[in-house]
Amino acid sequence: MACTRCGNHQAFSYDRVTCTCGGSLLVEYDMEFASKTMTKMAIQSRSASIWRYKELLPVTSSEDIVSLGEGWTPLTYMDIQAIGLPVSHVWIKREELNPTGSFKARGMSVAVSLLKERGARYAAVSSNGNAASALAAYAGCAGIQAYVFLPEDCPPLIVQECLSYGARTFRVKGLIQDSGQWVEVGKQLFGWSTVATMKEPGRVEGKKTMGFELAEQMGWKLPSVIIYPTGGGSGLIGMWKAFHELKQMGMISDPLPRMVSVQDAGCSPLVTAMGKHVTVLEAPAATGMRVPRPPDLGLLVRILKETGGKAIAVSQAEIDAAQRNLGYRGVSSSPEGAATWAGLLKLCEEGWIGSDDSVVLFNTCHGLKYGKSPGLESVPLLSNLNELFNKTS
Amino acid sequence: MACTRCGNHQAFSYDRVTCTCGGSLLVEYDMEFASKTMTKMAIQSRSASIWRYKELLPVTSSEDIVSLGEGWTPLTYMDIQAIGLPVSHVWIKREELNPTGSFKARGMSVAVSLLKERGARYAAVSSNGNAASALAAYAGCAGIQAYVFLPEDCPPLIVQECLSYGARTFRVKGLIQDSGQWVEVGKQLFGWSTVATMKEPGRVEGKKTMGFELAEQMGWKLPSVIIYPTGGGSGLIGMWKAFHELKQMGMISDPLPRMVSVQDAGCSPLVTAMGKHVTVLEAPAATGMRVPRPPDLGLLVRILKETGGKAIAVSQAEIDAAQRNLGYRGVSSSPEGAATWAGLLKLCEEGWIGSDDSVVLFNTCHGLKYGKSPGLESVPLLSNLNELFNKTS
Ligand SMILES: Cc1ncc(COP(=O)(O)O)c(C=O)c1O
Ligand SMILES: Cc1ncc(COP(=O)(O)O)c(C=O)c1O
Repeated sequence: MACTRCGNHQAFSYDRVTCTCGGSLLVEYDMEFASKTMTKMAIQSRSASIWRYKELLPVTSSEDIVSLGEGWTPLTYMDIQAIGLPVSHVWIKREELNPTGSFKARGMSVAVSLLKERGARYAAVSSNGNAASALAAYAGCAGIQAYVFLPEDCPPLIVQECLSYGARTFRVKGLIQDSGQWVEVGKQLFGWSTVATMKEPGRVEGKKTMGFELAEQMGWKLPSVIIYPTGGGSGLIGMWKAFHELKQMGMISDPLPRMVSVQDAGCSPLVTAMGKHVTVLEAPAATGMRVPRPPDLGLLVRILKETGGKAIAVSQAEIDAAQRNLGYRGVSSSPEGAATWAGLLKLCEEGWIGSDDSVVLFNTCHGLKYGKSPGLESVPLLSNLNELFNKTS
Repeated sequence: MACTRCGNHQAFSYDRVTCTCGGSLLVEYDMEFASKTMTKMAIQSRSASIWRYKELLPVTSSEDIVSLGEGWTPLTYMDIQAIGLPVSHVWIKREELNPTGSFKARGMSVAVSLLKERGARYAAVSSNGNAASALAAYAGCAGIQAYVFLPEDCPPLIVQECLSYGARTFRVKGLIQDSGQWVEVGKQLFGWSTVATMKEPGRVEGKKTMGFELAEQMGWKLPSVIIYPTGGGSGLIGMWKAFHELKQMGMISDPLPRMVSVQDAGCSPLVTAMGKHVTVLEAPAATGMRVPRPPDLGLLVRILKETGGKAIAVSQAEIDAAQRNLGYRGVSSSPEGAATWAGLLKLCEEGWIGSDDSVVLFNTCHGLKYGKSPGLESVPLLSNLNELFNKTS
């Protein structure tokens, strides 16, 4: 493993992912070996899942792989001509089409595989919701009992999802960091394994596959800008790592995309850390972006700076409008995914994104999971043919 | 096109899908031409969507293809050792991971592409829900205004989905056939194009790709049994057609799987048509299986008989249990998808499926879409560390 702060190397250790200097330790691989078998040709005929990149994932025995079909999500080209955005191309990576409806499936597939390899019996996480339901599904599938801790205001359907996958499910007063303590207690007292963000090596590695896929789906090219809704930040860290690994293997030569973090204006620690003042006008919504204290903020700042990227905040009104807009384009987006579209509009307006840019947005989660049943009163109930005239004219 | 009843052939016609004899007309292709370009090798490097089989889809100009990433869903191997089912292998085809959360996306991608090709401006469907939301998404994406008619008791989240994709959405008193008349009226009065089951050529062709994918994902082999939740029946018809086309092209040599239709015990016209009496003990639930009068029941009976298959009915209690069971295996299943697992258990018990059989189930839709918010009272709300002892012990 290599420390992202001091650069020190050490052997792979499941339990040690923080360096003595305080930096994050990330998994290293034998790149020479990987280059030999993980060729562009070879991958092409492999399964449409994250495990097509198995040489660069930390699970050693393939019997321990816990897979539910995660990854290889569509990259949909968006027709933006009509709305005249001053940008060359826009794609949206459809992470909502993962099992459990979010990109968190990628990380949990790897994290739970590592736990299975180690014979773990219990796994716990405190989460804004999607990591919890992903853990619930993968742990259940592996015969590991999941314990998940959710904020009190977690969307009810996500709570329901955790239950349906068999997780012991708890709500906790407060925000995500407040539920963290419960997991720590369970770890001490009951021997639970924790799969918290940046506290074990699997999740970043799993999320990394978003970067691999993006490159492969674009014909081993990269866009000039990536817009990603950021909470704990491991999605961003994972992709950044992926691009560096592909470069090392000589599989891509494009410069790294300018990486943009979108956050909720009500909770945007990364925007602040990048030196911009955000006026907090409203409480943050209960989404995956609501993470007041990302575990390795320093690394996130470095990634944004190194790639020439940026952190921006969007309001709930902007997110709502974006969600409607993506809906009309046939994409069911979560607030987090919609935030990337809102971010795109903002950056085009600012001129930070221009007509030479090709941009990839990440719809990290399915809109359905945040769904409220509509007031059905608003949907006409027909019983007499004449009514159709009135309703359509 | 070829008539499935009298065998007559006629040129492709978008508007004529019923033969003078009353049989269904299905699209025919130049198989010799298709065989040349749609080789096993060639497909491998194509996009992970239904359009990898474009030679056998009826859309002529690729600019008219309306795609949102439908198809190439995972085929997940199910570990059934622990529960000792007397069957060799079980897979589940994860149709819930399509855009709009159901296999209906496949059919609507093709149907809407055909409409776009023809310059249609309005499209309408009466549906139990999933076909409606799929039409809404694809039509929206193509700039075609969708009108959808849903039964009064359609799951609220599906109604919500239709609205979010921009469809003019109506609920109708009664069952699916009752809403059919509204579409007819709109067709006459407002010039809507109807995409009802078996009333245009695209949807069956799109659903057919489930059969292609199954064969390709299994290494151009077929399972011995397929269990499919049947409503209007076009999923089953599509797959049956797909297997015949692959045989014609010499791409598979296995015999056709025994095709099993699972229906809701409260509404099982196909079971009745196969000559079995079903005692109706409860009203059917509001699912895609609730289709009292499938448009071509005769063809469905023929397919089941020809393949040595069967139609069976399962109760709501069996569906509920199956849904829980699949949840614990990490799969979010709709009632329809869960019904296939219930059917599997039943057929194993009967001895109709045995230890030589390899079975593929179809989880046609995401469980989330039928989701009810849980009574959150049942989920502990923690505020004091001591509570964890009580809740976990
Ligand atoms: C839907 C969604 N998008 C984005 C995020 C943020 O991801 P990360 O923690 O990788 O920054 C989360 C995290 O919970 C999420 O659930
Ligand atoms: C989830 C689901 N499964 C199965 C069916 C039945 O499909 P078919 O009409 O192809 O028989 C439907 C149709 O509405 C559906 O929505």
